[in-house]
Amino acid sequence: MNKTSFKVSDLGEKELIDRIISRNSKCSFSNNFDFNDFKTNIGDDSALINHNLANDSYIVASSDMLIQSTHFPKDMSYYQMGYKSVVVNVSDLAAMGAKPIGFLLNLAIPNDLNLDDFDELICGVTSACADYHIPLVGGDTNEANEIIISATAMGSVQKDEVLMKYGFNPGDLICITGEIGLAALGFEILCNDKNLEIAKSIDSSFVDLALFKSLKPKACLKESFILSKYNYNLSSKDNCNINSRIACTDITDGVASELYEILKADKQYYLNNINNTNKVPKVSNEFNLEDASNCCRDSFEPYSKGILLYEDKLPIEDEFKEISSAIGSNYFDLIFHVGEDFELLFTIPKEIADSLKEDLDFFVIGEVINSEDNSVELLDSEGKTVVIKSKGYEHLSSY
Amino acid sequence: MNKTSFKVSDLGEKELIDRIISRNSKCSFSNNFDFNDFKTNIGDDSALINHNLANDSYIVASSDMLIQSTHFPKDMSYYQMGYKSVVVNVSDLAAMGAKPIGFLLNLAIPNDLNLDDFDELICGVTSACADYHIPLVGGDTNEANEIIISATAMGSVQKDEVLMKYGFNPGDLICITGEIGLAALGFEILCNDKNLEIAKSIDSSFVDLALFKSLKPKACLKESFILSKYNYNLSSKDNCNINSRIACTDITDGVASELYEILKADKQYYLNNINNTNKVPKVSNEFNLEDASNCCRDSFEPYSKGILLYEDKLPIEDEFKEISSAIGSNYFDLIFHVGEDFELLFTIPKEIADSLKEDLDFFVIGEVINSEDNSVELLDSEGKTVVIKSKGYEHLSSY
Repeated sequence: MNKTSFKVSDLGEKELIDRIISRNSKCSFSNNFDFNDFKTNIGDDSALINHNLANDSYIVASSDMLIQSTHFPKDMSYYQMGYKSVVVNVSDLAAMGAKPIGFLLNLAIPNDLNLDDFDELICGVTSACADYHIPLVGGDTNEANEIIISATAMGSVQKDEVLMKYGFNPGDLICITGEIGLAALGFEILCNDKNLEIAKSIDSSFVDLALFKSLKPKACLKESFILSKYNYNLSSKDNCNINSRIACTDITDGVASELYEILKADKQYYLNNINNTNKVPKVSNEFNLEDASNCCRDSFEPYSKGILLYEDKLPIEDEFKEISSAIGSNYFDLIFHVGEDFELLFTIPKEIADSLKEDLDFFVIGEVINSEDNSVELLDSEGKTVVIKSKGYEHLSSY
Repeated sequence: MNKTSFKVSDLGEKELIDRIISRNSKCSFSNNFDFNDFKTNIGDDSALINHNLANDSYIVASSDMLIQSTHFPKDMSYYQMGYKSVVVNVSDLAAMGAKPIGFLLNLAIPNDLNLDDFDELICGVTSACADYHIPLVGGDTNEANEIIISATAMGSVQKDEVLMKYGFNPGDLICITGEIGLAALGFEILCNDKNLEIAKSIDSSFVDLALFKSLKPKACLKESFILSKYNYNLSSKDNCNINSRIACTDITDGVASELYEILKADKQYYLNNINNTNKVPKVSNEFNLEDASNCCRDSFEPYSKGILLYEDKLPIEDEFKEISSAIGSNYFDLIFHVGEDFELLFTIPKEIADSLKEDLDFFVIGEVINSEDNSVELLDSEGKTVVIKSKGYEHLSSY
């Protein structure tokens, strides 16, 4: 049989992942896997494994690969590279409300790497492990022509506290834990010395903030513990009048892309829960792969949620717009279509907003609405509504 | 401060790993890590995490990175690459007696990889996951200029069944689950077409066996379950007269290197357990990092175990020697200093050998002896004893 002429770049990262998920499901079902032992859903921030934890918890695992030429700007120090490799994975645990329990470090380095630089990189890893209380428990070293750090973070979370990407309803608020776009701006500034010079001439301390956020990001672990406790409370009898849960993800690929991801996850959850009477049951935190086989019913109400953001509620400083413009970047793109902020993006039912404000600093930037298009829209400062497309950063894409 | 002129290649993989462990311990202790929550020992085949599993088990995790130019011979198919990425990690679980519970796949591929080849690679991964009953639960995709597969296998094992690298005593038998050196021979044959031609002219079916073992290795998971059950029995009252446990590892880097690794682990365990009366307590399966701080006592009996192998007990066929010689390879090197067999190498107390033979096929190739040099020796067929040096395959080494 002749090979097709399609390349992986014709599909891009997200479609390739869907392809892996599809092949994995087929293979698993045809091989009589025992799915009773674990419930999981590839596509959330981390995997959940239902495996006998004593306190009715899931094991949570997340794994990310960072490649020097793709993920590390040239000004990043070896310490910062090591530190970031922990942050990106701990951030995925945070997005699920999970407490870290162990970190595995797979490292590939050039043969001629200076030993001091190696030590600095390891120091970055161990410092971040200490900061996030995640013990480095194992890994592997290899040789490559550039630095590649592939790391795995394991954690655990009680089942009734877990923060999935689904479970929201129209009227729920869209929130973020901090400013967005700063890391993206930092990367743009680092692109060349001229950008740095221009940016510094406008506001030097703001530039320092952006560079810091891009070079030494932080994972919102403490914030995530607060959200998971509130999610637990939502499952209690006292809140039986509230039909929503907190949905949460971390901002890796840009706000727009992440918002479309939570809509996709919520839609998938809706389809999995459709029953014969076309009634959607109250959401629970368990997503069962077996349910996927039940998703094709004769008729049901189409999924009709969307997201509306308010431009005047976005936490963007004037300096941000001014510097973006001066270095020739579109500030809208930096905010919506570039990620690496590692802030948490989450939905909450309106009823808990005031109470949550007492425990957590966050910004409300929009709300879940009824929308047959399932789109993300922005109400701009002139009262016009525009659709924001999903075009986050995507590896392996030629578009 | 000026940088030193040392390169990582001046140290090599094993010393770099020791360097990571050392820095990790310092960092962990200085940051008041709570070690009560986990017991682990970097340096065994997988990490053990003591985290609330209901049936008094450890979470077990292993992570390995495979890089196309280093780990995959040019004749390896994409299916075989994917398959092997699962085998190497499941083999590390097997070396601990652990049952697989989840697999994470981090994949980097060239932008211009043919989509059919991508599908074939994924098919290799999912087929191996099905064969070893380990569900693919998550991962990451990236772009690189060659194929890099960094995967993590998670499992669990009951604490009294776990197979560590330590716990043996003089008189215990050194055993392997199958023939060694075949994968190494396969890789040598694949080096060039001439080797293949020469080898095939000697014994075509033996060559096919060697190629199969190098291109589609298997993890000894079933064998490991049997060993872990026997290890459990050794901890029971019925066996209180036996002071040994089963020590086990998988053959990744060559038999000699692996034997020195188990001696190193056993010595470390001995040093950690030295108490004031210079008496070594009966081995248990728990290795506590906190004990490491107690290892410097005034005086104690030096560690005095070594290993003696018998050349005439090594399972090596005449064809193996003949083909090795014909293609210009040293068969001794292929057996002792090249790995990738993924057979289990383990020690057992003599008392259980007959009983174990009823449940498991294995070869006895030597025994644990008293040796102040802590060396691995070979009694050759002429009655001479030679020391086998530790020189397994090591990345990042310029030696």
